[in-house]
Amino acid sequence: MKHFQTPDPRFADRVRDSFARQTVMEFLGATLTEVGPGRCEIRLPFKPELSQQHGYFHGGVIGTIGDSAGGYAAYTLMPADAGVLTVEYKMNLLAPGDGELLIARGQVLKAGRTLIVSRADVGVVKQGRETPCATLLQTLITMKGKPEVQG
Amino acid sequence: MKHFQTPDPRFADRVRDSFARQTVMEFLGATLTEVGPGRCEIRLPFKPELSQQHGYFHGGVIGTIGDSAGGYAAYTLMPADAGVLTVEYKMNLLAPGDGELLIARGQVLKAGRTLIVSRADVGVVKQGRETPCATLLQTLITMKGKPEVQG
Amino acid sequence: MKHFQTPDPRFADRVRDSFARQTVMEFLGATLTEVGPGRCEIRLPFKPELSQQHGYFHGGVIGTIGDSAGGYAAYTLMPADAGVLTVEYKMNLLAPGDGELLIARGQVLKAGRTLIVSRADVGVVKQGRETPCATLLQTLITMKGKPEVQG
Amino acid sequence: MKHFQTPDPRFADRVRDSFARQTVMEFLGATLTEVGPGRCEIRLPFKPELSQQHGYFHGGVIGTIGDSAGGYAAYTLMPADAGVLTVEYKMNLLAPGDGELLIARGQVLKAGRTLIVSRADVGVVKQGRETPCATLLQTLITMKGKPEVQG
Repeated sequence: MKHFQTPDPRFADRVRDSFARQTVMEFLGATLTEVGPGRCEIRLPFKPELSQQHGYFHGGVIGTIGDSAGGYAAYTLMPADAGVLTVEYKMNLLAPGDGELLIARGQVLKAGRTLIVSRADVGVVKQGRETPCATLLQTLITMKGKPEVQG
Repeated sequence: MKHFQTPDPRFADRVRDSFARQTVMEFLGATLTEVGPGRCEIRLPFKPELSQQHGYFHGGVIGTIGDSAGGYAAYTLMPADAGVLTVEYKMNLLAPGDGELLIARGQVLKAGRTLIVSRADVGVVKQGRETPCATLLQTLITMKGKPEVQG
Repeated sequence: MKHFQTPDPRFADRVRDSFARQTVMEFLGATLTEVGPGRCEIRLPFKPELSQQHGYFHGGVIGTIGDSAGGYAAYTLMPADAGVLTVEYKMNLLAPGDGELLIARGQVLKAGRTLIVSRADVGVVKQGRETPCATLLQTLITMKGKPEVQG
Repeated sequence: MKHFQTPDPRFADRVRDSFARQTVMEFLGATLTEVGPGRCEIRLPFKPELSQQHGYFHGGVIGTIGDSAGGYAAYTLMPADAGVLTVEYKMNLLAPGDGELLIARGQVLKAGRTLIVSRADVGVVKQGRETPCATLLQTLITMKGKPEVQG
């Protein structure tokens, strides 16, 4: 894994603040479990409300936490006064989301001045054993001068 | 828009049955508003629980209903005894999901024996005016002999 | 198809100049056959040098002219002093590239200040009949103050 | 990197045979430099014919060898009597293709019975130093009973 330097020593607080304001994360039940320069981990325990027609985690839910993990990985490398927006992502589903917990790990692949490219790998844990269930490749944009928290 | 023929005259019931079993759709508040051969429309009214850090629809939520709209568009063209799985999708966000309603319209681009390629366009409606907010390009697989409802 | 306004009335000359300097286009044998605000068409006749293992157009060649068609569609909407770069693209192959001619049609879906999202559809013509063979969804970036031709 | 088992001990010969019949590879000047179970490396020296408007490797050329590297990585894991087709790929360009040599390394992420997901990383070498210039995420399909060489 590549090592990155961030221009903002308070990057972890900034990510936690932004995550706390993504109300969809609380609604789904996701928690931010790790933040480092250029990386971020999000976990989501299963509940029946998150399932598709076979009773597994819905692909869109897998994409939601994968997108957030990759996006916050990118956000750790942005200046203190910037906001982050997802430009696009592509996700391949590798196995059904059959298990009791999803773990999404985002990492930055390339940090440019305006655009950041991230990857996020999502695993599903069943009876304590983790299986890769999705991988995302993502483009994020730095919104300069548009901090996520005003005030 | 291309016109498709479906091998299963009961395709609309089949889609409605499967949608009803995607509990995440009820959890989000989404409804299936239109089904035709090779196309499907899903609507999702805004509620604060679905928002990202700026108070707009979260990108992952937009992806979830886009994925479902494109996936069910594909499912309308599958045989009665088949199930549908998303292989992968790519989504470009075109504008913030700022509004009171999302409308996702899926349509099949190419229906092969095993794989189907769909597009889904998602619009956001604000004060009655719709703006395109995302477009998805998607690959689905026909799971032969694995109907979505057993019994 | 959406209608776009371009800030540069000389956009067509600008696209033709840039295309002429993409030596790979001449090497492949591609020609720029149409340019309008937010759209661009490129054609490529078959020659055995462009084929994959089955004797059809190679997927990478299809991607190359699709990428260029979508990229130049975006470039028509950029200011006179800007350059264009592809950020990313995703291509679905819809049918084998079996025929005597490829036609790639790029069109802009959304033109933002920094980023432009394009779609490109590639058809293959066999004995005078065109079949869709690929579709691309693409993100381009405006390189401000970096014109493509200096001097 | 994951380790894979292949059902065909002659996989390397099979890949080399197929590569030799992709005439576009010889036309571009690409060579197959490494093949292992679930991985493949392709190299392409620069020549002016491969360049875009700034004199760098064209993005489509980068995509072409990336697609082939990921596709042949997948093909190493297929049965002896099968052919391989690219379903779709997504490529993010990470840096300009500015250098004297491209190296594309494909590796399988997930090998299913019908579909294989691969990643390909493309580096550009300038004055002996390699820089990542693109990454691809790809879906391939196994064409059962359709061997690539008949006869």
